[in-house]
Amino acid sequence: MVRLQFSIQLAYDVLDETADFIFNIQAARTQCQTIVEEDLLINQATDPVFFTESGSGNRMMRLQAQRGSLVVRYQATVDIDHRTSFPEQLYETAVAELPPEAFVYLYPSRYCESDRLCQMACREFGHLEPGYGRVLAIQKWVQQHIRFQSGISCGTTSAAETLVERAGVCRDYAHLMIALCRALNIPARFASGIDYGANPDLGPTDFHAYVEVMLSGRWYLFDASGVTPPMGLIRIGTGRDAGDTAFATIFGGVSSYAPLIAINAIEDANSGIVMPVHCEHALSTADCAA
Amino acid sequence: MVRLQFSIQLAYDVLDETADFIFNIQAARTQCQTIVEEDLLINQATDPVFFTESGSGNRMMRLQAQRGSLVVRYQATVDIDHRTSFPEQLYETAVAELPPEAFVYLYPSRYCESDRLCQMACREFGHLEPGYGRVLAIQKWVQQHIRFQSGISCGTTSAAETLVERAGVCRDYAHLMIALCRALNIPARFASGIDYGANPDLGPTDFHAYVEVMLSGRWYLFDASGVTPPMGLIRIGTGRDAGDTAFATIFGGVSSYAPLIAINAIEDANSGIVMPVHCEHALSTADCAA
Amino acid sequence: MVRLQFSIQLAYDVLDETADFIFNIQAARTQCQTIVEEDLLINQATDPVFFTESGSGNRMMRLQAQRGSLVVRYQATVDIDHRTSFPEQLYETAVAELPPEAFVYLYPSRYCESDRLCQMACREFGHLEPGYGRVLAIQKWVQQHIRFQSGISCGTTSAAETLVERAGVCRDYAHLMIALCRALNIPARFASGIDYGANPDLGPTDFHAYVEVMLSGRWYLFDASGVTPPMGLIRIGTGRDAGDTAFATIFGGVSSYAPLIAINAIEDANSGIVMPVHCEHALSTADCAA
Amino acid sequence: MVRLQFSIQLAYDVLDETADFIFNIQAARTQCQTIVEEDLLINQATDPVFFTESGSGNRMMRLQAQRGSLVVRYQATVDIDHRTSFPEQLYETAVAELPPEAFVYLYPSRYCESDRLCQMACREFGHLEPGYGRVLAIQKWVQQHIRFQSGISCGTTSAAETLVERAGVCRDYAHLMIALCRALNIPARFASGIDYGANPDLGPTDFHAYVEVMLSGRWYLFDASGVTPPMGLIRIGTGRDAGDTAFATIFGGVSSYAPLIAINAIEDANSGIVMPVHCEHALSTADCAA
Repeated sequence: MVRLQFSIQLAYDVLDETADFIFNIQAARTQCQTIVEEDLLINQATDPVFFTESGSGNRMMRLQAQRGSLVVRYQATVDIDHRTSFPEQLYETAVAELPPEAFVYLYPSRYCESDRLCQMACREFGHLEPGYGRVLAIQKWVQQHIRFQSGISCGTTSAAETLVERAGVCRDYAHLMIALCRALNIPARFASGIDYGANPDLGPTDFHAYVEVMLSGRWYLFDASGVTPPMGLIRIGTGRDAGDTAFATIFGGVSSYAPLIAINAIEDANSGIVMPVHCEHALSTADCAA
Repeated sequence: MVRLQFSIQLAYDVLDETADFIFNIQAARTQCQTIVEEDLLINQATDPVFFTESGSGNRMMRLQAQRGSLVVRYQATVDIDHRTSFPEQLYETAVAELPPEAFVYLYPSRYCESDRLCQMACREFGHLEPGYGRVLAIQKWVQQHIRFQSGISCGTTSAAETLVERAGVCRDYAHLMIALCRALNIPARFASGIDYGANPDLGPTDFHAYVEVMLSGRWYLFDASGVTPPMGLIRIGTGRDAGDTAFATIFGGVSSYAPLIAINAIEDANSGIVMPVHCEHALSTADCAA
Repeated sequence: MVRLQFSIQLAYDVLDETADFIFNIQAARTQCQTIVEEDLLINQATDPVFFTESGSGNRMMRLQAQRGSLVVRYQATVDIDHRTSFPEQLYETAVAELPPEAFVYLYPSRYCESDRLCQMACREFGHLEPGYGRVLAIQKWVQQHIRFQSGISCGTTSAAETLVERAGVCRDYAHLMIALCRALNIPARFASGIDYGANPDLGPTDFHAYVEVMLSGRWYLFDASGVTPPMGLIRIGTGRDAGDTAFATIFGGVSSYAPLIAINAIEDANSGIVMPVHCEHALSTADCAA
Repeated sequence: MVRLQFSIQLAYDVLDETADFIFNIQAARTQCQTIVEEDLLINQATDPVFFTESGSGNRMMRLQAQRGSLVVRYQATVDIDHRTSFPEQLYETAVAELPPEAFVYLYPSRYCESDRLCQMACREFGHLEPGYGRVLAIQKWVQQHIRFQSGISCGTTSAAETLVERAGVCRDYAHLMIALCRALNIPARFASGIDYGANPDLGPTDFHAYVEVMLSGRWYLFDASGVTPPMGLIRIGTGRDAGDTAFATIFGGVSSYAPLIAINAIEDANSGIVMPVHCEHALSTADCAA
């Protein structure tokens, strides 16, 4: 088990009389991810509405802010008790056996044009043994062929564009890996969260995008960019792609400051709580319906 | 109320030993669309699994077919008792008031890149009075600026491409209209079905794509291409775009024949059953949660 | 006649041992644009090679710079004695009459996908009377439908993308106008230069992109973004699009500073030299072969 | 030397009163390609204008046809006496040494977005020894990663799209190979012609697209799709991409029939005329200025 403590601070200037925000910044509750404690502070007197998206389970907060400064600060401590599997035992589920909930993660989405990548995915990965190893081969291909570089991609960049430009950030790696999996009929989805353990040379802690792939009826964790050990991934939201998991969707005139994010791992040998490290096992935090 | 009778015949040659199919061809059950009778025939001895997608309510049928001919024939009679509204009374729902179920229909999707069309949508429609009239203005713009032409677009064509090429079929009209609505924060979704009453010069009856837009808490019907009276639209499936509502998704080596589709309207003055016609009212078949 | 005086200063840090540069910063010599004086300074001891591109007449300078600072400063005074025409007398040349040199300016190019815009151009402008007025209608459409905004487009942005995103800078306006002209079989080309007289609110003087369109056998000047009076446009280079007229093409590891550009208009009533102003006449600086 | 005899028959129905055509179907005259005899027949009494494009040397024929049937038939016998080189002796020319005529073949063009492929080209080919071998590696990569399939691409398909879709025809192979060469600063251009010796399984003889790459100051022949021995390539036109070398550009309402094309190789041992075969040498038919 790992225990991770993180905080997110979002700051805005609301320029209109009011502006509506939908936030998705709270740690997800899953079969394996438990919230030990959490705390939310908003500097305006507002009346946020909390709801959980059906399907994804994403925890949403909607609020209307007044003109002026809006600061939202969330912090949480979560325990993640991963389901650990031997990679060689994980199989791809035949389409005839897939649970209905999985289908939307087979379809192309805004930033994952799997419908355009079938030929490429078949050529590169079609001959590989189905299973965890093939998905890992896709992840390695993406990691090796895409250059980590900010400023090349933007909010509208999609997997097909990344395949051409061959550069981007974690979001772009995730979209490309997802699109390639779907092109092979392997359900894959986008996860947004915070990560512990990435190379600090890549810049200050930020939101992170990673991938969940359905194998043997469970969603397994992959860091498409290969920079973070999957043990260090906290889930906030999941969806078809980044379009479904924005940490903030804003309606109205607002200027935004860069998010401030911090994360720590807590070790406690007595309780069996370890530091996140790279490991050879496959890790999952949810079964197919979660 | 209208009563529509239709049949769909799909024929395939399965080239592999087996192939998996997911069909979405059964008429939807909604608050206003009732199935009077329906009948399904499959020429192979197979054991189809039926399930209803949560969220959309789409009625799915999964089956595994053997090598050889596969013919699926579905026919149904449906009654549609539209909720009729005065256009001038329908309002756009403020984001702060939108039900959680509506949000996914605000996000960009594979074929509706609303994230790229904000500027265009604001310029063309931003100054119009919000409400049904504005949505109708979007529909008219799409109808007038896009040329109905088959063979220009294909299965991967998206709204942004249609906005450039300015030609396409019903699916392309629908995608562009949806993308423009979402760019203005109006929830809009794709509906697949069969239509009665289109100009027969446009070719034989086929599957039809149209649009549902949320106004005043209900989903209102629009035929983006303007060829079919909304009263003549039968709903089969709804989703974010065509990627979610394919009438057949096929896994395996299969060659397909063109679908054979027929539709009739049944009039019965005694029961108040009328023929579908163009009318000035706004028509809805489902509230926001359906 | 107008007399314009301008200077361009380009500064680089060459990071490799050597780097190759191809500059196109010298004022063009055309039938109507005469160089009164010009001066070029390079801070490194290098041996630039000057050549004139056949076809375009662009004045190119190639040099190899050594590691360290490279500063290139060019200044010139040019007299432009425009050929002035009455707009209503200018006609579009029938394809059967076009000079061979004009054909490349009918073809689509990297950033001007006229082959994708035929339908749109025909719908919007096909019914207008051919001639200068139609070209002006295209320019006005582009000016009105595109929002001037930097940071939206980048070096790989093309006309089709600008038609979707509806925002960009002078380069994007020019590409879209060119593509629309070509889609109607009107030869159009990209011109790079410096402009006098733009609204200073748009920022400091910079390189400017504008459009030349062939009418009545001559190339007429249009500022696609509508911000500069055509009388204030100095030509440096022309080509199919921005890809042909980069002010600097660099081969090697180099970091660049923002160009420093200044321009003045000189009035001399005795010599008939006037200030550039908006005027109702059509202006040309070159016949079809130049 | 090879001797090739070919014929092209193009047939149209002119639907308007008149239509203008620009044909580029006559065999090019180059330093190595000599026209032994040629013959042109047009079924309408028209007065074609012949001209040679400066730069490319493409032989153009412009004519105005009347309503009704238009048939153009061209046949020629050409001798091609290739300049033969040892691959290992061919070098890439440093940018500082490139002749001015070569620069336009470094720039991105409509269907060859080399500006988007720099990262990909550097990753895949940047580490290879510059020279013929590297260009051959690019050709092999394209041949191996793209599937020959008609009906996937169309007239507006570009290299970046082919890199995503991974399928296309000779034109698409050529565009992708050219874009990758240019992304590495190797001048490359598109050639249209007729080919002898392709696998007849690929269908009846048709126009063919191939690639010329500048090495050691000459243009060397590559068949990007790898199906035709370069010895069997007849040049009709060259340009930046397919946009410059259409065999027919049509202005007016016209319906077209499929071209009828035939080709034969003539062997004459006494005159040293051999059959086109695959060979290990590099073949060129023009120096850098031709």
